[in-house]
Amino acid sequence: MAQAPERGVPAGYIAPLAAVDSARFGIAIVTADGREFAGGDGDMTFSIQSISKVFALTLALGVAGDQLWTRVGVEPSGTAFNSIVQLEHEQGIPRNPFINAGAIVVTDVLLGRHEPREAIGEMLRFVRMLAGDKDIFVDETVARAEEETGFRNLALANYMRAFGNLRRPVEQVLGVYFHHCALAMSCRQLARAGRYLMTGGRHPETGHSIVSARRARRINALMLTCGHYDGSGEFAFRVGLPGKSGVGGGILTIVPGVASIAVWSPGLNERGNSQLGTFALERLVHRTGWSIFDPRPG
Amino acid sequence: MAQAPERGVPAGYIAPLAAVDSARFGIAIVTADGREFAGGDGDMTFSIQSISKVFALTLALGVAGDQLWTRVGVEPSGTAFNSIVQLEHEQGIPRNPFINAGAIVVTDVLLGRHEPREAIGEMLRFVRMLAGDKDIFVDETVARAEEETGFRNLALANYMRAFGNLRRPVEQVLGVYFHHCALAMSCRQLARAGRYLMTGGRHPETGHSIVSARRARRINALMLTCGHYDGSGEFAFRVGLPGKSGVGGGILTIVPGVASIAVWSPGLNERGNSQLGTFALERLVHRTGWSIFDPRPG
Amino acid sequence: MAQAPERGVPAGYIAPLAAVDSARFGIAIVTADGREFAGGDGDMTFSIQSISKVFALTLALGVAGDQLWTRVGVEPSGTAFNSIVQLEHEQGIPRNPFINAGAIVVTDVLLGRHEPREAIGEMLRFVRMLAGDKDIFVDETVARAEEETGFRNLALANYMRAFGNLRRPVEQVLGVYFHHCALAMSCRQLARAGRYLMTGGRHPETGHSIVSARRARRINALMLTCGHYDGSGEFAFRVGLPGKSGVGGGILTIVPGVASIAVWSPGLNERGNSQLGTFALERLVHRTGWSIFDPRPG
Amino acid sequence: MAQAPERGVPAGYIAPLAAVDSARFGIAIVTADGREFAGGDGDMTFSIQSISKVFALTLALGVAGDQLWTRVGVEPSGTAFNSIVQLEHEQGIPRNPFINAGAIVVTDVLLGRHEPREAIGEMLRFVRMLAGDKDIFVDETVARAEEETGFRNLALANYMRAFGNLRRPVEQVLGVYFHHCALAMSCRQLARAGRYLMTGGRHPETGHSIVSARRARRINALMLTCGHYDGSGEFAFRVGLPGKSGVGGGILTIVPGVASIAVWSPGLNERGNSQLGTFALERLVHRTGWSIFDPRPG
Repeated sequence: MAQAPERGVPAGYIAPLAAVDSARFGIAIVTADGREFAGGDGDMTFSIQSISKVFALTLALGVAGDQLWTRVGVEPSGTAFNSIVQLEHEQGIPRNPFINAGAIVVTDVLLGRHEPREAIGEMLRFVRMLAGDKDIFVDETVARAEEETGFRNLALANYMRAFGNLRRPVEQVLGVYFHHCALAMSCRQLARAGRYLMTGGRHPETGHSIVSARRARRINALMLTCGHYDGSGEFAFRVGLPGKSGVGGGILTIVPGVASIAVWSPGLNERGNSQLGTFALERLVHRTGWSIFDPRPG
Repeated sequence: MAQAPERGVPAGYIAPLAAVDSARFGIAIVTADGREFAGGDGDMTFSIQSISKVFALTLALGVAGDQLWTRVGVEPSGTAFNSIVQLEHEQGIPRNPFINAGAIVVTDVLLGRHEPREAIGEMLRFVRMLAGDKDIFVDETVARAEEETGFRNLALANYMRAFGNLRRPVEQVLGVYFHHCALAMSCRQLARAGRYLMTGGRHPETGHSIVSARRARRINALMLTCGHYDGSGEFAFRVGLPGKSGVGGGILTIVPGVASIAVWSPGLNERGNSQLGTFALERLVHRTGWSIFDPRPG
Repeated sequence: MAQAPERGVPAGYIAPLAAVDSARFGIAIVTADGREFAGGDGDMTFSIQSISKVFALTLALGVAGDQLWTRVGVEPSGTAFNSIVQLEHEQGIPRNPFINAGAIVVTDVLLGRHEPREAIGEMLRFVRMLAGDKDIFVDETVARAEEETGFRNLALANYMRAFGNLRRPVEQVLGVYFHHCALAMSCRQLARAGRYLMTGGRHPETGHSIVSARRARRINALMLTCGHYDGSGEFAFRVGLPGKSGVGGGILTIVPGVASIAVWSPGLNERGNSQLGTFALERLVHRTGWSIFDPRPG
Repeated sequence: MAQAPERGVPAGYIAPLAAVDSARFGIAIVTADGREFAGGDGDMTFSIQSISKVFALTLALGVAGDQLWTRVGVEPSGTAFNSIVQLEHEQGIPRNPFINAGAIVVTDVLLGRHEPREAIGEMLRFVRMLAGDKDIFVDETVARAEEETGFRNLALANYMRAFGNLRRPVEQVLGVYFHHCALAMSCRQLARAGRYLMTGGRHPETGHSIVSARRARRINALMLTCGHYDGSGEFAFRVGLPGKSGVGGGILTIVPGVASIAVWSPGLNERGNSQLGTFALERLVHRTGWSIFDPRPG
């Protein structure tokens, strides 16, 4: 379709997100050979929100290993990010780690025996290490606003607790959850943090293994099938890359072996994913042939 | 059931499928440079069943273009292949073209103004052309057995008719549907027929464009997110390739730019997908690094 | 509420119902001591539609006895009259005999080994006998119009057939179903036909037992909990009597031991029940104290 | 489990309920002319649990009037007492005041501007007044056990809060809710407390109006259509009286104008209603002809 995309509507359920200028647009691309490109507001920080679920999952798999998959599924949910219906039908086991319920279980694993403060600190250190940037921080204003209005997440967490799929107290788990969702990052920082999913699990600077190649591949697969809630099919259809969106308007996208890309534009489409961000990625992939569904260059 | 449990249980709802020897296993690989490998029962014909939905979709897109997407969605359903629940909640618009309801709408488009016999003939000619093999045939015994027991598909079709999402008479649409699902093909024929999805839409022998590169990419995306019903997420997680399974035990899988692969083993897992076939593909991808979620070779 | 009720909208899905004058209103009351009152258009015939489900259930219980309850439930559905969702979740067993799916199973029992024509004849004779009126007839125009557009009922029937909960061919069962729903009766005839539910099962003129007292009581109970689809609770709340509505705008209501009442007004509320008819019954009960939830007169 | 299966299984989710002797059975009948009959363990106290929802509703209607019905529906839910699915589909409006979600909203109304302690005190005074018995008390052990394990109710409450259908803090509302459900009463006390629903709203001793006749009738109607969760249809079918069950094994049943009846037996059927209690009521009604669906005595 040729017409200019509307920008969609920024999330308005908490004041700090509603206050963001909807005209912002940023993009950053980091390639496998180490080059970085940033455009527009690519160096301005925003609330990464659900994109943090990718990093939380990565850390939690390090803690629990594949045992995690007994508590969270790997299937697209077919429903909205905060739906509770599926939980009732499937005895408190969330469909995948990228819907809210699933990320709450992942956070419960992350928390483990730690104090909430320690768990938040660990997440922060992990993301800083991935991005190679010590300036990344948690926006406490956002975290607190979430905590004050997060009734639906409280419902999800208590519901899973009723089924025995939450070990730590609901308030502590949600405290950590809201904090890692409140990570403030720029497109450049985000694209850098996602590099290990482009490289088969290795840190591109140190060469150290962040996760095994098999695990990196699986996280990419989950991003593709479940990374955009009930709009995941359409993102795969239009863009054709593993991606994870956040309600703050960011999207992290991986071109395995080639690039890690972050875009940001606060306006959301009706499924809660960045409207302009998706459009930009669609265009980029069209130009570059980077879709994983296109023939690989020989 | 006598067979080893790891092979799963063959479909038993119609006699011709139940009668198939569950010990069979076949595989065929056709690569982008034209080489062919076949192993086991790779040259034995079987009922491709739902795999035909890929070819039907391809043809129907040629008829209706992107208008088709006003009548069928592109999202994973989160439910079983023959679920009717989603249709009620979404006014007769099937979630995607690979669940039964979606493939029935696709078949309605295919039928268009033709007589059923002509539409079946067109499908047969199309698949023969794709595979470069005139011996491919429709197994009438299978088609008739489906027609005699297809009450659930009759329910789906009538339900969509009630919402106005079926144009031709239900009996005619289902007649064509059951016939294209009854295509009998070997793994080798199937892998050959799938080559246009490996090549970005071109017939590898003639070089003619079967579909545009964009359309080929999108069909691959749909196969990845929706090709295994409510087991699509797991297939992406374990195998990491666009694939479409059939209840006859076959799976067609595409490695874009690299290979078109067909496997066959009649025993199904609890979600109706070939158990041994999936396992074989998982192993193959592990060895070759062909997952689309792995770094692309530079 | 004091404001004049709007009349609602007549059913428009088939021409013969859409053509009915929406200004019509009729009422008839037959009391236990044999008096009859009729007002407005109380002697004008209309299509009784789903009200026939009460008579069909009564006949089918005579055929199958309490075995019927292994194939149909006795619980309110919580969903619309033509919902198919519940059937999928509960393996083809309809929630109650007054939603469409349930009445189709009841009709299957009624049909038994008969030819469709015989079964329709039996229903007609039964209703004529109950009302003591040989002029009651089936409106073939209505029956035929239903058959031409009844895709949703075809879906329901085929769906239950898939679960083995329909014995006779779908077309035959629906043929009988559409015909008994097409019974044309006046309020007076309908109120007379309902007398056996007022008297504990006896024909008030002959004294013969139509059904046992226990069965009459149970049919009344089902009419109260399930007689108005997903508006049953509200009807009990506002009117407080066992009742069965039809999409033609009729309602049959029973005051056990006291009266059998029929009202008719074609305009429907948003749940498919006669708007003015319900309002009239609410007023009548308010004046008479006939609600079964009011203290019984000593 | 050691007890005879026909008695069902007592609730085991909190220790105080699990510890009750499953062999207990009590019954009490209070008639309109003031006679009282008690049998078995009819004077032994038990946890009335959800039966308190009837008294809470009565009080809340006094506070909010018919405005209450904008926040709670009057339809049977078709689902279990603690289901959350319906809430998602219907924007946080519970189907009726007798499922948990509905009773939580009712409790929110009850709480109003009071302190939780005051609201609990008001409920206690109300029930004591109804029963004419100052010995009725709240079992703090039960209330506390509920609070410690009530994750599913926390989920329901937070979920409704997310939709704006809860005004006071979740913890306070649930605190009051768990306390009024923890009322300890004997069958005799319960039957006495229910008399106002038998008399059209008047206190049988003082003659004072507790609620209007219209409101008493409506509460009875709700008890009939919704008083036994997804077993309400069956209770109406078998017993034919307005009734409200509790997970402690009690049932309060009303014969309008005739009697108020309470039974108690801890063993529950698969839908959470007293098995032996229901059976006893079925027998009683069979002997007395008290079903509201039977002809009224002339």
